[in-house]
Amino acid sequence: MSDLRDDLQRRAAALDAADVLAKRRELFALDDSAVYLDGNSLGALPCHVPARVADVINREWGDLLIRSWDESGWWTAPERIGDRIAPLVGAAAGQVVVGDSTSVNVFKAVVAAARLAPESRDEILVDATTFPTDGYIAESAARMTGKRLVPVAPADLPAALGPRTAAVLVNHVDYRTGRLHDLPGLTAAAHAAGALAVWDLCHSAGALPVGLDAHHVDFAVGCTYKYLNGGPGSPAYLYVAERHQAAFDSPLPGWNSHTDPFGMTPGYAPADGAARGRVGTPDILSMLALEAALDVWDGVAVETVREKSLALTDFFLECVDAYVPEGRVVPVTPAAHAERGSQVSLRCDGGLSAGEVMRQLIARGVVGDFRRPDVLRFGFTPLYVGFADAERAARVLAQVLAETPGEVPA
Amino acid sequence: MSDLRDDLQRRAAALDAADVLAKRRELFALDDSAVYLDGNSLGALPCHVPARVADVINREWGDLLIRSWDESGWWTAPERIGDRIAPLVGAAAGQVVVGDSTSVNVFKAVVAAARLAPESRDEILVDATTFPTDGYIAESAARMTGKRLVPVAPADLPAALGPRTAAVLVNHVDYRTGRLHDLPGLTAAAHAAGALAVWDLCHSAGALPVGLDAHHVDFAVGCTYKYLNGGPGSPAYLYVAERHQAAFDSPLPGWNSHTDPFGMTPGYAPADGAARGRVGTPDILSMLALEAALDVWDGVAVETVREKSLALTDFFLECVDAYVPEGRVVPVTPAAHAERGSQVSLRCDGGLSAGEVMRQLIARGVVGDFRRPDVLRFGFTPLYVGFADAERAARVLAQVLAETPGEVPA
Repeated sequence: MSDLRDDLQRRAAALDAADVLAKRRELFALDDSAVYLDGNSLGALPCHVPARVADVINREWGDLLIRSWDESGWWTAPERIGDRIAPLVGAAAGQVVVGDSTSVNVFKAVVAAARLAPESRDEILVDATTFPTDGYIAESAARMTGKRLVPVAPADLPAALGPRTAAVLVNHVDYRTGRLHDLPGLTAAAHAAGALAVWDLCHSAGALPVGLDAHHVDFAVGCTYKYLNGGPGSPAYLYVAERHQAAFDSPLPGWNSHTDPFGMTPGYAPADGAARGRVGTPDILSMLALEAALDVWDGVAVETVREKSLALTDFFLECVDAYVPEGRVVPVTPAAHAERGSQVSLRCDGGLSAGEVMRQLIARGVVGDFRRPDVLRFGFTPLYVGFADAERAARVLAQVLAETPGEVPA
Repeated sequence: MSDLRDDLQRRAAALDAADVLAKRRELFALDDSAVYLDGNSLGALPCHVPARVADVINREWGDLLIRSWDESGWWTAPERIGDRIAPLVGAAAGQVVVGDSTSVNVFKAVVAAARLAPESRDEILVDATTFPTDGYIAESAARMTGKRLVPVAPADLPAALGPRTAAVLVNHVDYRTGRLHDLPGLTAAAHAAGALAVWDLCHSAGALPVGLDAHHVDFAVGCTYKYLNGGPGSPAYLYVAERHQAAFDSPLPGWNSHTDPFGMTPGYAPADGAARGRVGTPDILSMLALEAALDVWDGVAVETVREKSLALTDFFLECVDAYVPEGRVVPVTPAAHAERGSQVSLRCDGGLSAGEVMRQLIARGVVGDFRRPDVLRFGFTPLYVGFADAERAARVLAQVLAETPGEVPA
């Protein structure tokens, strides 16, 4: 065992030494006491964000007060920050706008997609394994546009598409299993069936190339507090493909989306471009914290991040396989690279409580999370997680499992 | 003139000396170089907010990371902060939830009100002079619930109510004119007609008593960045009267409103109570900045604020009357206390450009704003504006007007 460990640790050190992203970790407020593998839930704090937020509060709000809406660029922040996110998801400028929560943006996107479809297309397909909020909100969008919501397992989507399909809403990466869905293929299949494709990028943006424009995605949404490190509950974003912008019919036509918001006319006339996706007054503190956080991406290609992410998750799976006795945990994240996001999910077998195992792991400095009933999640964020972290996490997991008896089924 | 000025300045000094709220100004990051009369647009910065936000960022996000959702009380912030706002708007605990923008909350409230009405009630009445976003969003809510939107001037609302009215949406204080609408009377009239009343409190919460519970208001929304000083674009709030909570049918049933959000079940089961008004992940930085900002209300009764607000606006109108030659500006804010909010709006007559006048005022340290085409707005925020400020503002206005010729109509 100790030979095995020495070998894995030597390899981890070599991989870290060769890692072109290794220096990026210094940009984050992380110490080495813990291995943080929960950046797929809440990204770590970039070191320079506190000073930027302090300036926003003290100078822009405190001193300049109302003038900051113009002078500090507050008013245009949603589009400006959208253009910072755009290259990370493969979108040309002018198609992404930041604001509201992911749930609210799912509502805008699904309603808008439903409205673009002819009446005869009366079904909205939704990824049946999706993060729940997408399903709940899609159900509301369907109800309010006179459509029927049809939950379908992603693998069955191509067969479920048909002349009645208005739109399909899919998660790019499954939040529970870490499975990466085939965005190019499913988008093309939707289009071939005459339907529109709406993608939720919460678990892929900042972790792997998305290629929204290249794959002709129609609408997309995503959060910014996972791999984009925007901070807890930081604003989400909405992508409306340029070809749909002129017909984009938002169910939330707030004054910020008006073509002349300060005209304050009683009649609604929508703005052109990404701004049409705005609703109310933007949440400036959170939004400008996010803007600052995006600096850590300067000079980083998402392809490089993906390469490291796959190497990290491969190595972690290898370490788990080496350290953990067979049958205690079973990977539910696909082994095939084409089907893997940037997390590894392990199912606890043999009556083990995933919640209890994760509590033990966290107590020993390995921070992941769990999803009921039995899944341990380990997120690999290539900007600040290294190969030694992966080895340590697997090793501590093996220790915890060795000390945690399986529960005896009743 | 100088006798008049001496007299007004002496009276201002006496009023400030007797003002029980005068010391509250020290809680705000304001210097005396300017008179800030735009707190009805963006409230001033409470001095202790920067340190609190720094702690949220550095310790709660940076150090505790994901643990803060539980340990730092992030998850329950929307209800907890709602309960801080509740007494300011006359609501018992458990009925106010913080999150999203005012526009998004208008959507929730109007859709929910429409859904509570029988099908035969197919009209939603909206204040025709409302802040535009309310009208735009109400139109969308009407469209998506199969109702018809009918804009009606507030004075005509009682006559417009009838057996077809499902709900009525009114602004408590008109953003342009500063007119205070009769919340008890219009709510009672709506109820007498069998309709529900939805109130927008953006320009009244924190400025005057609202009495949501006492007057049996059904739904209410409001922002927190004006008289509540939550910071630019800070989260809004939604009030659902306790008697409607069980039937509250949100059009935005995001996972945060689920009765067991971490069960992550595909079926939606709404939470009880105020939490049902939640949607997506709360925007923690902005939300906790707001929570800290609310400390300035500790020990302050809103009735005391109202008393000072009326005295301030009375005094400002008196000073304007004394300093400004007749016919240059005309108050559009009602003289009657029962019809006045906490701002004074002055219409520029004789071809004067309100925009130009306001630019001159700001250059001379009197910060208000203007609304097209011809209205100067001066907001009086009793926690940090005093009587000497009111006198100075009126005096500088008179100077600016004396130097600004009216434009010759073409």
